[in-house]
Amino acid sequence: MAVRSSEGPSRSWVESANAAGCDFPIRNLPYGVFRRAGEALRCGVAIGDFVLDLAALEDAGLINAGAHGPVFRERSINAFMALGPKAWAVVRAQLMSLLAEGGDGRLREDVVLCGGVLFPLAEAELMLPIEVAGYTDFYAGRQHAFNVGSMFRGAENALPPNWLHIPIGYNGRASTVVVSGTDIHRPLGQRKPPDSDMPVFGPSRRLDFELELGSVIGTGGRMGEPVTVGQADEMIFGYVLLNDWSARDIQAWEYQPLGPFQAKAFATSISPWVVTKAALEPFRVSTPQREKPLLPYLRETGPLLYDIDLEVSLRPAGAAQATIVSRTNYRHMYYSAAQQLAHHAVSGCRMDCGDLLGSGTISGPGKGEYGSLLELAWGGKEPITLDTGETRSFLEDGDVVALTGGAQGEGYRIGFGACTGRILPAPPEPDWGS
Amino acid sequence: MAVRSSEGPSRSWVESANAAGCDFPIRNLPYGVFRRAGEALRCGVAIGDFVLDLAALEDAGLINAGAHGPVFRERSINAFMALGPKAWAVVRAQLMSLLAEGGDGRLREDVVLCGGVLFPLAEAELMLPIEVAGYTDFYAGRQHAFNVGSMFRGAENALPPNWLHIPIGYNGRASTVVVSGTDIHRPLGQRKPPDSDMPVFGPSRRLDFELELGSVIGTGGRMGEPVTVGQADEMIFGYVLLNDWSARDIQAWEYQPLGPFQAKAFATSISPWVVTKAALEPFRVSTPQREKPLLPYLRETGPLLYDIDLEVSLRPAGAAQATIVSRTNYRHMYYSAAQQLAHHAVSGCRMDCGDLLGSGTISGPGKGEYGSLLELAWGGKEPITLDTGETRSFLEDGDVVALTGGAQGEGYRIGFGACTGRILPAPPEPDWGS
Repeated sequence: MAVRSSEGPSRSWVESANAAGCDFPIRNLPYGVFRRAGEALRCGVAIGDFVLDLAALEDAGLINAGAHGPVFRERSINAFMALGPKAWAVVRAQLMSLLAEGGDGRLREDVVLCGGVLFPLAEAELMLPIEVAGYTDFYAGRQHAFNVGSMFRGAENALPPNWLHIPIGYNGRASTVVVSGTDIHRPLGQRKPPDSDMPVFGPSRRLDFELELGSVIGTGGRMGEPVTVGQADEMIFGYVLLNDWSARDIQAWEYQPLGPFQAKAFATSISPWVVTKAALEPFRVSTPQREKPLLPYLRETGPLLYDIDLEVSLRPAGAAQATIVSRTNYRHMYYSAAQQLAHHAVSGCRMDCGDLLGSGTISGPGKGEYGSLLELAWGGKEPITLDTGETRSFLEDGDVVALTGGAQGEGYRIGFGACTGRILPAPPEPDWGS
Repeated sequence: MAVRSSEGPSRSWVESANAAGCDFPIRNLPYGVFRRAGEALRCGVAIGDFVLDLAALEDAGLINAGAHGPVFRERSINAFMALGPKAWAVVRAQLMSLLAEGGDGRLREDVVLCGGVLFPLAEAELMLPIEVAGYTDFYAGRQHAFNVGSMFRGAENALPPNWLHIPIGYNGRASTVVVSGTDIHRPLGQRKPPDSDMPVFGPSRRLDFELELGSVIGTGGRMGEPVTVGQADEMIFGYVLLNDWSARDIQAWEYQPLGPFQAKAFATSISPWVVTKAALEPFRVSTPQREKPLLPYLRETGPLLYDIDLEVSLRPAGAAQATIVSRTNYRHMYYSAAQQLAHHAVSGCRMDCGDLLGSGTISGPGKGEYGSLLELAWGGKEPITLDTGETRSFLEDGDVVALTGGAQGEGYRIGFGACTGRILPAPPEPDWGS
């Protein structure tokens, strides 16, 4: 793979960043929010096995985003993102220079400063990196839409008539977007057994994950003003791994006619590091050939997807090892994040800094490439077998789901870290008092 | 109608508050956010023809919400709402005492103070009263669901199978909730003509209003913790008029399978005054008889709806007068806001201070009682005639839609003011660059 100039220096004096397979080499520099025990939240970037404290670097005058005041001593990266693409490029260049082997020595040569700004990742508690303004989830994977449509509506009605024309999406619930590592309670809700006239209430029995990539909007727009696909791509700051936890039994009963609601509202997990669009630049690939021509407002302006390998693993409670249950790639999507964003804004809907757009479940064409248990075990008809010998159609209490991913360059990897979540039992039912 | 003690004093020394038909008598005291020309935003309550500056009253030590610091010199009433029901009751009692004929004289007798805290409503610019944390729209009107279902899916499939069991709702878009008086651009989007294979793009041709009441959540909950209907009712701070602007042609093409998205995302208007639950207390009425028994978590704990008369008027550009096109009542709803909120939280979805829940379109049983043009003109088949002689199937550019409403007590009215919006032409299409 050719090395483009945008990739920057290849080696850092932070040695762990140069290790083969490291998720966070100097060409990555993903943004997050962290704290050390007893200390306040602030923004950081991951480099090798370390987190670099951007607030301290800003205080020391070694980085400057060009804002009127500091932007990194914050509970989210939103203040920085809101500054826009020029500021993003400026800070990326400053950080690369400070971290590169043979670069600006002001950090490398100042042992005291290094001790105050570079902390082992193991000592950092990673928080939700963004203040989620709005969360929208799309449905842009062709194979996933076909698979789920087949199960919910039959193979002949699988792909809705609008699917090849619209990046179908729905508004999700922003209040329950949580950072990787947060435990997830199995949701309570209504489901309707097929042989019953009446729905029943209780813990979901068909709890699932959905492997997605989330795009993070850095700069917003204005109400009543559409944006082009090209503008939309410039508004995107970066990408995270996203697990759109789903209760399939609740979903099947509730989703018509107004879409998924409580089946998805209980939790959405994202990875703690926002991988920037700049770091992913060398890995751009084109969307697949259009089966129907898109309307002009949705047409590609260039390659808008990325070649990002993705994996899902599942580890039952007590198991020593996780089983990899799916391997796929983001390049399989039919619609890109920029197209989703352009569609989102086309009605005049105002998009904001901190908006999070889920790609939709990323299912490749092959069976081991599906991005949900619903698909992998085909609605419970073909349970999968884990390395422990256990089988799964849906998630059990205690299961830990981990999403990982990265773009593979020549001798380096732009990694996303992990997005994990463990299933806790449903909460006890309160006394409903009726 | 019996006068309960919760209604408080009947007359104010602010004379305009005692006028027959006044929306804002002393028993109402709705909360909002305002500014006078060149001044900062702060919270106020409406009393007669005046707005009472709560920030100044707080500074003067005449009201105290019991928080550690001031809560009314804010851009929204969220800080006050977050204090919870006890603080709401305390401030209501303080305000009633200060404003009642024969009550605490500290405001009434201080002419200088009065001049600094009581401003004519005409001089106040009214802002969005709440910082909208999340916006969810429901579908809880039996007649509306039947009407729309008939048009979209045929009379035999009108009411979805889940409708009598679930207060059906979907997540709306919070970024475009705007205050009454904000102009609304006709949205651009995709629609599919029935005789065409391919969708077309352009301004919506079937733009509509939806008459709703919005409930405003004052105190939030916790992720993973369901709430009972009784608890949900206590979490609600108050109610606003809500216009869920809808582009029917965009909606019809996009809404399956994941629900309404861009057809609704371009704008939602709410009235500037949040009428408190306390003011509405005397007007509680029961939900209609259940056609199917509800699951225990949704059962009524008492009367949860309110007897609130509602009206929609439409004024074409250039017309001297508006035509009243619908008269209905909130009591027609099948599900109450408390039941919607309990359902919303039941999966473990965290509810937040500032969440806004749309009731769903409020359509009474009779034809002149329908809450949308779609229903009033039956999908364009029976256009309505305005007082100007013009007809309408859907909204035209320049049309002004006004929602008004109030609960009628004996000799007084708990009014909501108005929620208005004027339709502007669609924005020009940008050069899509493709």
